[in-house]
Amino acid sequence: MTDVARAAGVAIGTVSNVLNHPDKVAPATLERVQGAIAQLGFVRNTNAQQLAAGRSRSIGLVVIDISNSLFVDIARGAQRYATELSMNVLVANSDNRIDQQRADLDFFDGARVGGILLAPMEDAGDDVARIRTHGRPTIMLNYDTGRNDCCQVLVDNEEVGYLAARHLIEIGRTRLAFVGGRDYLQPVALRRRGVRRAVAEENGRVTLQEIPTENLDPPGGLRAGEELAPQVRDGRLDGVIAVTDLLAMALIQVFGAEGIAVPGDVAVMGCDHNSAAWGGMIPLTSVQMQGIDMGREGVRLLLAELGEDPATHEHVTTVLRPELVVRESTVGRSAISAASV
Amino acid sequence: MTDVARAAGVAIGTVSNVLNHPDKVAPATLERVQGAIAQLGFVRNTNAQQLAAGRSRSIGLVVIDISNSLFVDIARGAQRYATELSMNVLVANSDNRIDQQRADLDFFDGARVGGILLAPMEDAGDDVARIRTHGRPTIMLNYDTGRNDCCQVLVDNEEVGYLAARHLIEIGRTRLAFVGGRDYLQPVALRRRGVRRAVAEENGRVTLQEIPTENLDPPGGLRAGEELAPQVRDGRLDGVIAVTDLLAMALIQVFGAEGIAVPGDVAVMGCDHNSAAWGGMIPLTSVQMQGIDMGREGVRLLLAELGEDPATHEHVTTVLRPELVVRESTVGRSAISAASV
Repeated sequence: MTDVARAAGVAIGTVSNVLNHPDKVAPATLERVQGAIAQLGFVRNTNAQQLAAGRSRSIGLVVIDISNSLFVDIARGAQRYATELSMNVLVANSDNRIDQQRADLDFFDGARVGGILLAPMEDAGDDVARIRTHGRPTIMLNYDTGRNDCCQVLVDNEEVGYLAARHLIEIGRTRLAFVGGRDYLQPVALRRRGVRRAVAEENGRVTLQEIPTENLDPPGGLRAGEELAPQVRDGRLDGVIAVTDLLAMALIQVFGAEGIAVPGDVAVMGCDHNSAAWGGMIPLTSVQMQGIDMGREGVRLLLAELGEDPATHEHVTTVLRPELVVRESTVGRSAISAASV
Repeated sequence: MTDVARAAGVAIGTVSNVLNHPDKVAPATLERVQGAIAQLGFVRNTNAQQLAAGRSRSIGLVVIDISNSLFVDIARGAQRYATELSMNVLVANSDNRIDQQRADLDFFDGARVGGILLAPMEDAGDDVARIRTHGRPTIMLNYDTGRNDCCQVLVDNEEVGYLAARHLIEIGRTRLAFVGGRDYLQPVALRRRGVRRAVAEENGRVTLQEIPTENLDPPGGLRAGEELAPQVRDGRLDGVIAVTDLLAMALIQVFGAEGIAVPGDVAVMGCDHNSAAWGGMIPLTSVQMQGIDMGREGVRLLLAELGEDPATHEHVTTVLRPELVVRESTVGRSAISAASV
């Protein structure tokens, strides 16, 4: 940190502020200090060989599933900010496999990247602790360890579910279903809780049934759709929140095949704004998970942690707010056309 | 190769066939030899330290733009095949920047991956030659160097354009436009050639105008749409092929705002099956670029090259066939519904 302060011509406290409280620093100073950081490379745990190879100026990003556009957004957000700092981001896809996730973490550790951003499938505390002993911090994305043992960037997933249910209630739907399974996955459990809260606030005017699915991909949605179709016909169901967009897309497909109109007979929406689910016949209402911001904030926290003494570093959790994206599957094409013209 | 042959209990010629002509090898033998290759790791240019770190069992993939789903498909195809061979794939995004592409190649070189798959923006011959001197082959994806100086996996991009124009002609459209620019990009120039060929085959029954755009993203499509809208109203245009799906999506948006019906007044299609363009109001007809197969074939060619003596290795080019994907933007929703029920 002393080197950075000297290079930027500022006090050490200013460098610390840049890393930890950038909002407190004048823009021009911020830029000068960040420039010096970029110029000098990471200020700890580097050596000439690594700097020469440029590898300590690289960040490893491990994601669960690169075909989910949330993780593509995270990669883009992280890379754009890294590029501003003359760093680069490498992406490893754990492809929903815990052994692959460990192999990816080990690759980045062995390749001596400066640090790691990890969007984990489940608790990876042991791996993270091991890698930290090599001087490489890991920032957790979209996963709350609940232990304050690393910096984290989260989206308020309870708010995701709440926004989804509020939207259906506001467009007049009163007989809702929540479709989703694998509650051991944090986002699923939290979104479910948010949906329940929005329904509870209606004091019985809105009903909610919960349809468990084995997985979060289209096959689970097809089975749930077959279960729900008779209820739509009987007027017992007029709004569905699927915990993922892929489930929602499958539901719409089944309803279409059964002659049920979306959103006429039943409004359907997803919760994770996954562009892989946009290929269906009816554009899908969903909730934007702010992946670009998540990636950017992850790099910022990583840089902050690298700039501090590990003995005194205090971990930070940033929580991002999700945002509703309204499309045809809940309000119909005419409403969207009217709004967009 | 001797070690692999011994481990698999086959002749050296059989190992060579597995690597170069897998179609000539019995499935059971193929599996046994590939297993031995995976077991032993890459057979050249490895040492105990690298094998211990597992890095020579890693493949670096450098793509132009990770937000284009073609490259996500390539990554998934490469990774699935790599996983079968107990290897892994790391992805670097050059984000449409040539300096970033070089930085990504250098990262992988420095990290001592076993080899590199590169979907380049433009000719990267010097970088590839330099990296090859370190014993790391590079397989080119979706780019023809025209020099036979490395193995390549291509999609027949002329066929992409031909399939697109044939589709519009077959559904009865006769006054076509091709929208796209940046002809120095190989896929653009080749798709244009394919479109011209399909139109030429009609001996004047079908007309073609070409609308240049500055870029391949939505802004270019918005301007082209404003130029074309009056022609649609005058009946001078009834079918548009945009060289990218993002351009096509922008065209549909402009036409919608101008009160022009798609596909009623004008059929619109893209050419690269990019899921990022699926968020529009009207699902888009496009051409599937076979990214999954491209990634898989890239890994196969890399493994083959690594298994051979660089002095005698002969570079191979695999050309994949694209496939038309028909959606609402050219045939309307009712035609799709009828077909899918």
